[in-house]
Amino acid sequence: MSIFAAGLGLQTTDGNGNVLEVYFHKAFVRTEQNASAVDDFVKIAGWFYSGGNKTICLAPYQIDKLIEAFSEHTGTVTFLEGARDAHERMVVTILETDEAPQSVAEAYLKLTLLSSRAIQPHGQSLDGIFAVLPNVAWTNEGVVSLDELPARQLSARANGGVLHVYAVDKFPPMADHVVPSGVRIGDASRVRFGAHLGEGTTVMHEGFVNFNAGTKGAGMIEGRISAGVMVGANSDLGGGCSTMGTLSGGNNVVISVGEECLIGANAGTGIPLGDRCTIEAGLYLTAGSKVSILDENGVETSNVKASELAGKSDLLFRRNSQSGKIECVTNKTAIQLNEELHANNWQTQSTCKKVP
Amino acid sequence: MSIFAAGLGLQTTDGNGNVLEVYFHKAFVRTEQNASAVDDFVKIAGWFYSGGNKTICLAPYQIDKLIEAFSEHTGTVTFLEGARDAHERMVVTILETDEAPQSVAEAYLKLTLLSSRAIQPHGQSLDGIFAVLPNVAWTNEGVVSLDELPARQLSARANGGVLHVYAVDKFPPMADHVVPSGVRIGDASRVRFGAHLGEGTTVMHEGFVNFNAGTKGAGMIEGRISAGVMVGANSDLGGGCSTMGTLSGGNNVVISVGEECLIGANAGTGIPLGDRCTIEAGLYLTAGSKVSILDENGVETSNVKASELAGKSDLLFRRNSQSGKIECVTNKTAIQLNEELHANNWQTQSTCKKVP
Amino acid sequence: MSIFAAGLGLQTTDGNGNVLEVYFHKAFVRTEQNASAVDDFVKIAGWFYSGGNKTICLAPYQIDKLIEAFSEHTGTVTFLEGARDAHERMVVTILETDEAPQSVAEAYLKLTLLSSRAIQPHGQSLDGIFAVLPNVAWTNEGVVSLDELPARQLSARANGGVLHVYAVDKFPPMADHVVPSGVRIGDASRVRFGAHLGEGTTVMHEGFVNFNAGTKGAGMIEGRISAGVMVGANSDLGGGCSTMGTLSGGNNVVISVGEECLIGANAGTGIPLGDRCTIEAGLYLTAGSKVSILDENGVETSNVKASELAGKSDLLFRRNSQSGKIECVTNKTAIQLNEELHANNWQTQSTCKKVP
Repeated sequence: MSIFAAGLGLQTTDGNGNVLEVYFHKAFVRTEQNASAVDDFVKIAGWFYSGGNKTICLAPYQIDKLIEAFSEHTGTVTFLEGARDAHERMVVTILETDEAPQSVAEAYLKLTLLSSRAIQPHGQSLDGIFAVLPNVAWTNEGVVSLDELPARQLSARANGGVLHVYAVDKFPPMADHVVPSGVRIGDASRVRFGAHLGEGTTVMHEGFVNFNAGTKGAGMIEGRISAGVMVGANSDLGGGCSTMGTLSGGNNVVISVGEECLIGANAGTGIPLGDRCTIEAGLYLTAGSKVSILDENGVETSNVKASELAGKSDLLFRRNSQSGKIECVTNKTAIQLNEELHANNWQTQSTCKKVP
Repeated sequence: MSIFAAGLGLQTTDGNGNVLEVYFHKAFVRTEQNASAVDDFVKIAGWFYSGGNKTICLAPYQIDKLIEAFSEHTGTVTFLEGARDAHERMVVTILETDEAPQSVAEAYLKLTLLSSRAIQPHGQSLDGIFAVLPNVAWTNEGVVSLDELPARQLSARANGGVLHVYAVDKFPPMADHVVPSGVRIGDASRVRFGAHLGEGTTVMHEGFVNFNAGTKGAGMIEGRISAGVMVGANSDLGGGCSTMGTLSGGNNVVISVGEECLIGANAGTGIPLGDRCTIEAGLYLTAGSKVSILDENGVETSNVKASELAGKSDLLFRRNSQSGKIECVTNKTAIQLNEELHANNWQTQSTCKKVP
Repeated sequence: MSIFAAGLGLQTTDGNGNVLEVYFHKAFVRTEQNASAVDDFVKIAGWFYSGGNKTICLAPYQIDKLIEAFSEHTGTVTFLEGARDAHERMVVTILETDEAPQSVAEAYLKLTLLSSRAIQPHGQSLDGIFAVLPNVAWTNEGVVSLDELPARQLSARANGGVLHVYAVDKFPPMADHVVPSGVRIGDASRVRFGAHLGEGTTVMHEGFVNFNAGTKGAGMIEGRISAGVMVGANSDLGGGCSTMGTLSGGNNVVISVGEECLIGANAGTGIPLGDRCTIEAGLYLTAGSKVSILDENGVETSNVKASELAGKSDLLFRRNSQSGKIECVTNKTAIQLNEELHANNWQTQSTCKKVP
């Protein structure tokens, strides 16, 4: 039987047995390369598995069998051995097909696939994920159900400590589950689990990345990547800049940013950008804005809605500081300006191209 | 004797006995409904209480008497039993009148009343609260006085750990004291204790809510609610948007936002908004801005200072992308546009209307 | 032998002995005032020290000798006694000269000097600091190497807890190393180690301060101070405002802000500002913007690039809400407006001048 994806995790439940979160230490999509290992895994881990999308608790003898079968997969063995003492919380989730997640475990498996780069944003179904995920408190003692929070808080206080609640949300911060290779994150509370950060991405303290969104490659992210938005390699999102989310004002158009773009500080875009585009600091380009297209002599050649420029490359957008008009410079002029702007932003370093 | 409010809490002191923080597990305002229970409470808890605004330490026999008297109030009994071992830190604060807070306990009681929705912002006196609250370090080991911080830090380091300081401020994050029902908070460090979040409010990671400020009902808050600012039900504050605080540039006018408003990403308002108003993404409407009022044919009918539009409903503000003028569209056009904008922002879900 | 600076710290290493972080409890620059104490310190602590920039592990007998020699320096004795049990991690770093940092210890010593106000931003060489500092995970269990993170995460999970990662970066938050006197920091994750906060500075939750940057005196910082940017005393950076970093778009000009300036909410500057300057909320002043200079009757007297106004005092910048032009008002008018704006922002209080 062919499957779509699977994972080995540890679940956390509340006092009533409701699953609050599943930590998948190992999660994978079945590919040509790993097909035989995955099939072995399903055969053993899924002892009672007979198809469909299922989450199964593992018995100790299955754990031992898996350790034997995967003796050559160091990571899997490490997990199995490390989690053996917590075997009553150990689960395997097997997804035969990529359908909308139906359980907390299925949702967390799919978020893990995103953040560990096993799958790209928009590469799988996340329909209805908000209805599946419980709203919980993320604390220094781990996940806590909101019903049990006051009693836990009291208990911590009575013992002279404090239960520090760092979020009340359906999604934990990504870094408590997955830290992919080659990234820096100034404030981990601002990258939601399910974000996809490409190798070489730095998310500065003012940056933000929602789930099912992120960067394809390297990038300097000091602005906000809304749910569903993808940013191409080597682009620079300036401090506090905004990308309109598909859920919030972006209508039906999925916003995206191409490669080698620069969105200036406190700027924003309501249209998808092609490659090598620049938006001047402080300018918010909404889809409905009228834009004057200038030739290389600065003469207006046409006047269009910003939405008509969606996805086009080599554009520089600015607001004329004397007339208040939103202008767009194209072609060579734009490319040169873009290169100029980038020249100061990127430095050659082993771990990061730009170094704020 | 009638009283205004009271609470049962656990206090934390520094090595010199200075009170740094009081955690009120139970706090209430006396109302017609709870009057007899509150009066009983004052009679027992306030054994030596003879009026005025006072904070009293409880003796063990008083705790037992309270447990007996409040056997039907599960929450109170839970607190009393749970905190009995820490009885030397247990306090009762009784406020006969709503006067400016005079002690750390009185200030924390009033902040608890706000965040637990027992009282609305501007509903009680908080005069001089900054002078009463000590500036302290909020750490993973609880509150620490700044004088004792270096020694505590050293001790944690010498033991191979770290004292993680997550804020140095007069106010803790709200969620370490109170998490009201039906809210989500993406980054709890951005909601100050004393904020008032209405049922159905989501504060996203870029959102911020100061004390004595907040939302009356449901809302999607991705921007900043400054001290004193209240936002009506079903309004949407876009990412990074700003509401001018009464303490900072808002002069004497208290800024507020009505119901079903939309302040776009990176926009801002320096005037109070009525209901169903929209400010375009990226536009900061200061009180002194001149605004062109357009009729439904787009013809300017008048030109006024933004401050003259304070509190008016059904307005849409935008900057003309060709002339640079700030324009205001009214009546039907505005309503329609508003509905259109909101249509994409809100989805029907049990726990959240909008789902970024 | 004369030296530049020195410090006593505790280092943290990974399983392979790589230094991840050094916590300097005591760090100082040699001055005329402390010269003899520093020379004594070097003589004893640097038993085997023969010049240059070196980090040396201390033997227990050296710790005892130092305690004896510094019996009058309470802070140093406290550190030595407190850290004696961790003596195998205790290091002394001695910098004969102010050269580019060559090791993790040297980099941390220089960051400590900045944040503890022993040296001003730009007052020492930090060349190449990004190449020297390892990228690591900052967690509730202290610093963790990225190689060891998954195993540590698994171990915490298997034990029913969670390893909370609050940043993945080359720099820790400042407050986990140093909290200078007279400051408030709403969200400590937004002030990087190496920031310099002057006495009386409040960094609100939306504020941000990068390393080698900060405030010279008191200030209300609700906006972003980029790497290398210094802000003069009594200036007010409004919520979400931006200062262009020298690394990101600011070209070769180091941005700075003078005294008693006000940068409005969501505004920004791409030029250095003199004293008593104001930028209207929402206006981003890039270096290339054309600016109309108005006289006191509102008549345009000249039209210049913003970069030509770099460092000039008593200017107010705004965008005309009817023409879309960026205008600059100078002289008296500007001063008066500035005073007016500030009048509402600052209150007289012992610990903070302004109280949001």
